Parts: sequence; structure tokens; C-alpha cells
Amino acid sequence: MFKKETYNARRARLKKTIGSGLLLFLGNDECGMNYADNGYHFRQDSTFLYFFGLPYAGLSAIIDIDNDEEIIFGDELTIDMIVWTGIQPTLHEKSQRVGITSVKPYKAIADYLKAAQQKGQTIHYLPTYRAEHQIKLLQWLGVQPGNERPSVPFIQAVVNQRIHKSEEEIAEIEKACLVTADMHLAAMHTVRPGIRECDVAAVVAQVAYANNYELSFPTIATINGQTLHNHDHSNLIKSGDMLLLDAGAETEMGYAGDMSSTIPADPTFTSLQKEIYDIQVAAHEAAVAALRPGVRFETIYDQTCAVIMDQLKQLGFTKGDPMEAVKAGAHAMFMPCGLGHMMGLDVHDMENLGEEYVGYDGHPKSTQFGRKSLRLGRELEPGFVLTIEPGVYFIPELMDLWKSQNKFTEYINYDKLFKYRAFGGIRNEEDYLITTDGARLLGKKIPLRTEEVEEIRK
Amino acid sequence: MFKKETYNARRARLKKTIGSGLLLFLGNDECGMNYADNGYHFRQDSTFLYFFGLPYAGLSAIIDIDNDEEIIFGDELTIDMIVWTGIQPTLHEKSQRVGITSVKPYKAIADYLKAAQQKGQTIHYLPTYRAEHQIKLLQWLGVQPGNERPSVPFIQAVVNQRIHKSEEEIAEIEKACLVTADMHLAAMHTVRPGIRECDVAAVVAQVAYANNYELSFPTIATINGQTLHNHDHSNLIKSGDMLLLDAGAETEMGYAGDMSSTIPADPTFTSLQKEIYDIQVAAHEAAVAALRPGVRFETIYDQTCAVIMDQLKQLGFTKGDPMEAVKAGAHAMFMPCGLGHMMGLDVHDMENLGEEYVGYDGHPKSTQFGRKSLRLGRELEPGFVLTIEPGVYFIPELMDLWKSQNKFTEYINYDKLFKYRAFGGIRNEEDYLITTDGARLLGKKIPLRTEEVEEIRK
Repeated sequence: MFKKETYNARRARLKKTIGSGLLLFLGNDECGMNYADNGYHFRQDSTFLYFFGLPYAGLSAIIDIDNDEEIIFGDELTIDMIVWTGIQPTLHEKSQRVGITSVKPYKAIADYLKAAQQKGQTIHYLPTYRAEHQIKLLQWLGVQPGNERPSVPFIQAVVNQRIHKSEEEIAEIEKACLVTADMHLAAMHTVRPGIRECDVAAVVAQVAYANNYELSFPTIATINGQTLHNHDHSNLIKSGDMLLLDAGAETEMGYAGDMSSTIPADPTFTSLQKEIYDIQVAAHEAAVAALRPGVRFETIYDQTCAVIMDQLKQLGFTKGDPMEAVKAGAHAMFMPCGLGHMMGLDVHDMENLGEEYVGYDGHPKSTQFGRKSLRLGRELEPGFVLTIEPGVYFIPELMDLWKSQNKFTEYINYDKLFKYRAFGGIRNEEDYLITTDGARLLGKKIPLRTEEVEEIRK
Repeated sequence: MFKKETYNARRARLKKTIGSGLLLFLGNDECGMNYADNGYHFRQDSTFLYFFGLPYAGLSAIIDIDNDEEIIFGDELTIDMIVWTGIQPTLHEKSQRVGITSVKPYKAIADYLKAAQQKGQTIHYLPTYRAEHQIKLLQWLGVQPGNERPSVPFIQAVVNQRIHKSEEEIAEIEKACLVTADMHLAAMHTVRPGIRECDVAAVVAQVAYANNYELSFPTIATINGQTLHNHDHSNLIKSGDMLLLDAGAETEMGYAGDMSSTIPADPTFTSLQKEIYDIQVAAHEAAVAALRPGVRFETIYDQTCAVIMDQLKQLGFTKGDPMEAVKAGAHAMFMPCGLGHMMGLDVHDMENLGEEYVGYDGHPKSTQFGRKSLRLGRELEPGFVLTIEPGVYFIPELMDLWKSQNKFTEYINYDKLFKYRAFGGIRNEEDYLITTDGARLLGKKIPLRTEEVEEIRK
């Protein structure tokens, strides 16, 4: 964890912003896979980590602004448990390392909150994303599951703090990105015809775990890159395939990396693959070149998608004015997902707090197919960390749907498109920090252009 | 999955056993790690898998015995979702593969259950182990979290079916055990001074994932084998250390393997390590030799612990009659955990249904320290699959505690014991099927005796 002054300063700023009331932080519990004691690897709630730093299950916390109290609720180990777990610092000692001196038994939180309700204090809490959170709100505050009313001021205050990454956070993210890069390099040395997707996913996980890191999200390793939500790893990789890998590491402190690469099964790309791959690279490099403070990310998205539509036009897939096609939404045939997202303690940073606050500064997001998947649209500011990940996808189900609806025939040449029905999908992804005058790649450069990929694959 | 006749037969037997009422099966949902859409790898509930076979999130099922209905509740993919996930069989098609023709939208389950309650049908459900289950029981049946009343007849009927493994199940478990053995063999080729515990855990995971399997439980890979609940992997392995590895694979159908090995950091064990390691092997082999139908597993536990106490006596750690020491509970200084547990769709099979039913046939379990950690005590029957995992541990915290209480001074020579305060812990573990006349090792033999371990480490 960081030094206690970091957590003290974060909490002090938050208290000042909110001004009054009581802030409830729901730490995460263990989650049993198939029975209670066979848990998934524990992951603390990111906002709890940001303000209280402790990566242990069974904790919750209160900042009572009205009464100037900061309390961690949790239970000390009994001597019986120490026999099984070995000696470790007490919860009091751990809490002191993050600047908290008031530690109470876990069951005391219910009474504390009841008293606060009786005194008429405003109790702020954040959106829930686990059923265990809902049960706590039910048992502590009488909130029925589904009737949660998260506090908008609390959400906005947390977003406004977490959104700008400090130097010490950037150093952590950089560690995640370096390992993430190594995961992709290992994959580039592994992919070949005759192995399965799971062989690649296994090597990728091995690199993360050997650093004592976790995966920051479930790995995508697929020869069907056009299938965007794809966590199946059972396919055999055949000559002529490309493997799309989207994978990242998470450091012991919980900071994420997130990169994608598209790797030919054979030592070199086919000329057909190169044609489309080069479009991704052109779009990718255009997006990166545009990164700087003061630019709206949605503008960069428009420009990047226009690059894709323009280059596809040169190959005969599209027609008409590229930027007009993008404004109309025709580009979503090839790029139905976003260009990038915030990254930090969450790989999609603060996603549970609401994209409208994180990515759109409280403004509503577009509802247009494709554009609505852009998680980040707001003006960029120094200290933002985000991904750049344009893609070029050939999605048969989407082709069929739009063709049947006669959609965007002024922009899309369906005859040509259907010849590429089985082409697949290409995405590359890197992580950037917005600096005072531009952007800086986080981690290290891995092969991106075709010749770089082919060089490492020799 | 198995063929539909398997699931049909399982459900038919269950219906016949219970006789009347309505059986509610809570399938598992996705569980977000740090936000809703960043889920842990999905794991279906094992009892749902056993009777309905479908390894997908967002399903629940009802067997309405009174009205002879078997229904899966879940939602079909929309065309929007198919664009992201690709074409796949519908839920109706998937359900037919497990013999279910009645599929209803997920939200219909609440009305179905309300109607059943109004008709006065008995609604049986099993113990919960995830907060999401509790919320479903609250929303569907009005059961407040913490007030669940699982059905004992339902529990007992499920246990009595799942406890005997069929030929097709044994074949699946054997697949899990073969990969589990490979995980341990890979570790034996990896462990050396200068790497970290996480390097070993990473190699072990890589072997499982490369088979498109999951880990059946969080890997233990530790130089502190005496710390029984230890999932930290950060320590450097030094010359003179032993690494205790407890790890297993889970097949795509959800069947588990579970083995342990204790591997010297150096090519060979020290003579001190050999002394204690040989005690584990003697106990281990005595336990395996005793496996056969009709024998109470608690009797084998007694005998095995007595072997440990007897051999420790020869080294001067213990005194008095070994079996008397075991009956009194003094052996728990060295073996505070159990000798083995059932294994199947769960690595601790059916643990969420209650150890008293699974391991003790409905009879109460001992409350004595050590013996109370024995998950399995009942008479063995053909078709049981279980682990054998005696250990010899030197636990400083337990030594201090018992010494301070003057406990078992008639059986334990504390002066000698404290000289081994920092020795650590040793466990080896194998998986066995109880046959009609004995037991059969599942998977394949991996090095167990010191000379076998040293041979492979050359």
C-alpha cells in the first residue's frame, strides 16, 4: 500500500468536498465459487482500496463527517484462527498503516448506522455491484434490493478524485503495463498452428502469476476476433488464422494494465490480413497522435473512425464521405465498440460508479449503436490514464442484420463486404497517460506494425 | 455434458425419493470482481450441474413433483447480444440436450413460486452459499437473509445420489486427476532456490489452463507448509526450504482433482527433512492400504494418526501409547486437519450441503480440536471418491498455545518439539476411488517417497 499520508489526504479532500453527512464504504467479502469456503481470489472494492488501502475481506468503513470520525469495522483473528493462518499484524495495526486509529468489531456497524439514521444524518453510499452489498444495505439501512439510491454527490466526489492519477499511482499502473506487455510478448512467441487458444491464455496467465499479479480481467484469446464478448478458449489455431489477444495484469495494489494484440498463426500475415491490419494501425496511430489535454475524446473517436472508413473506402468496402458516415453511425458495422476507456484501480476505471460521471462528466451518453459503446467522451485532462484500442471487425451477424434492414446502403458496399464475411477481427490496444502537453505510452512498446510483429515472430 | 439420459435418470430418481412438493434449484450468476461486468470466471452451482448439466449463468430450475413439471428459467439472447457473442444454440436447444423441454423466461419463476406457495405446495431448497442466492430467496419466497430453512429431505436425497460416482463421472474425475498430476510434476521440475512461490503457482496454473481446465481451488504453494490456510505466494524459495504445493484441476464439466506434494528446494532432502517426510509417507501408505468398503473412515483416521504418533515417539517428540494419544486428541498438535474428504463436482464434495450429511451420514461430528476438521468419518462404500492427505506439521502458534496450557504433557515432549519450532510442514495427497473390494488410485502415480522425489528432481 501507499504511505498513510496518501490515504489521509484522500479522505480529507473527500470530506471537504462532501461537507456533511456520513459516507459508507462497503468493502468486499469472499465469494464462494461452488461452496462458501472455496472462494475466488479475493478482490477488494476499488473505492475502498483508494481511501482505506486494506486489501482484506470482511471490512467496511465509515467516514462520519458530522462527527469527525473515520472508522474501520472488522474483526480481529482469534487464537484459533491464528493457528491456521500464522501470526500476522492485527487489524488495528494494519489500519494504522492507512491512518485509521478507530477500529470496531464488524457487527458494530449496524448500530452505528441505526444511530446515524435516528439522528437524521444523511447516509451516502455508492452503487452496488455484488449481491453481498445489497444484503448489507438491506440489513444495515433497510434498503430493499433493487431500491438502492446511491448518492450522486458521493459518486461525483469519488470520480473527481480517482480520475486524476497521482505520480505514485502512475508508477503502479506502469508496473501493471510492463507485465501486461510481457504477457503479450510471451503470446507472440507462443502462437502457432496446431495449438489451442487455451495454450496461449495459459502462457499469458503464467506471466502475470509469476509476478505475483492477478489478471485484471478475464483473458480474451480467440481466433474469432470479430466475436467481441468471447471467453471461449477451446479452438484449435490453424494456419491462416489470426489470434486476437486482449489481456492485462493487475498489481498487488490493484492497479490494472490492459493491452490487445492480433497475432498471425503463421510467421507472417497474408496479404489480405495485412490490408485490414494496416487500417487498424493507421487508425491507432492517428488516435495516439491526437491525444492531448483539452481535446474531447469523442472527437478523437470520430476522427479515428473516419480514418477507418476512409481506408476501407480505398479498398471498396465503403463509399461516401467518411466523416459523414461516422456521424450517421455507419462505421459501427466495422467498429461497434469504443475507442478506449479510463484505466486505474479498475481496468474500466470506476465503471460501477457510472459511465456518465466517469466518461462524460455527468452529461448523457449517445444512444446510437456503436457510439453508445464509447465509455469515454469527455475532454482530456492531465493525469487521465486511458486505453487506445480501435478495431476493424467483420461481424457476420451484424452484416446479416443491417443488410436485411437495408441500412446505410449509401455508405456500405455490401457486395464487397460479404466477400469478407469470414475475415474475423483485428484490434490492437495500448495504454496512455495524458500529460500536460500530450500523452505518454505506459509500460513499453510492443510490436504493433505488421513488420514489427513479423520480426518478433521469426 | 453427459447424454440427456443421464440427467433424466438423475431427476427421475430424485423425484421418486422426495415424493411430493416442489424442488427449487438456484443456478449461479456472474460475480463481478470490482464492477458488474468484470466477472470472475463463471462457475455453475454443482447440484444444478448434476441435475441440469448447463454451465451457463442466469438460470434457475424447478422440479414440480406435484404437477410433474421440469422447467428451466432463463432468457434467450437478443439479436443485439448475438452481435457481441456470435451465433450459438438457443436456451431451448441447450435445455433439450439435458432432457428439458419446458423453458420459461427468467422473470416467470417468481410468479411460478408465488402460485405454488398459494396452493400450499412444499417448496424445497438447498443451503445457500452466495449472497445472490439469498436475494433470490428473499425476492421469490420472502425469506429474509439469514432466515433460510433449507430442506433436509432435499439435502439428503441429493447427497445420496451425488455421493456414489457413476462410471462416466469417474472418467471425468480421472481426467481432472491426470491434469492435476501433471501440475505437480511440472512443479517438481520448477522448484529451486532463488525463485518465488508465485513462480511455482504460475506454472501449476499454466498446466491447468493449457488443458482448458480451471483450478478446482486456489493453489497453495508455500515454504510455510505449517500455515494451513496460506494463499500468499510472495516468498523467495531458499536452499533448505521445502515447498508445500496443494493444487488441483477442474474439468470443463466441473469435476475436480486435488493433490498435494512437498518438494525440497534443493535436489535432495536434508536428513532432518527425510526423517519427518518418511513419517508422512508411512502414515499415507497405511491409510491407503486400509481403504475398502465397510470400513469407517474415522477408524482409518485414528490408525493413520496413531502411525504418526508412533513414529514421532521413536524420534522422541511424543510419548505414551500412540492410539491413546490419538483418542485423547494429542495428535492434533501435528495433524490438526483431516485425513481426507469426498471429491467430485466440488473439490470438497457437497460441502455446502453440510458435512454431517456428506461425511457423517446425518450423525453429529466430533467437536474435538483436530478431529472436528475431519470432513469424512462415515463407512466407505463403492463409488466414493476421496482424498488421502495426512500431514505432519510443526505449528509454532499451536506449540505456544498448548505449552502455555500445559496440554497433553503426558503425550508430547515439548522440549524436543520446540527444537523443531521452525521445521515447517509436510503433506502429500492423492485421490482414490473406493471399489467393491478395495481402492484404486485416480489419475497417475506421481513421486511420493523421498527417493522418487529426488529421482525426478535430478
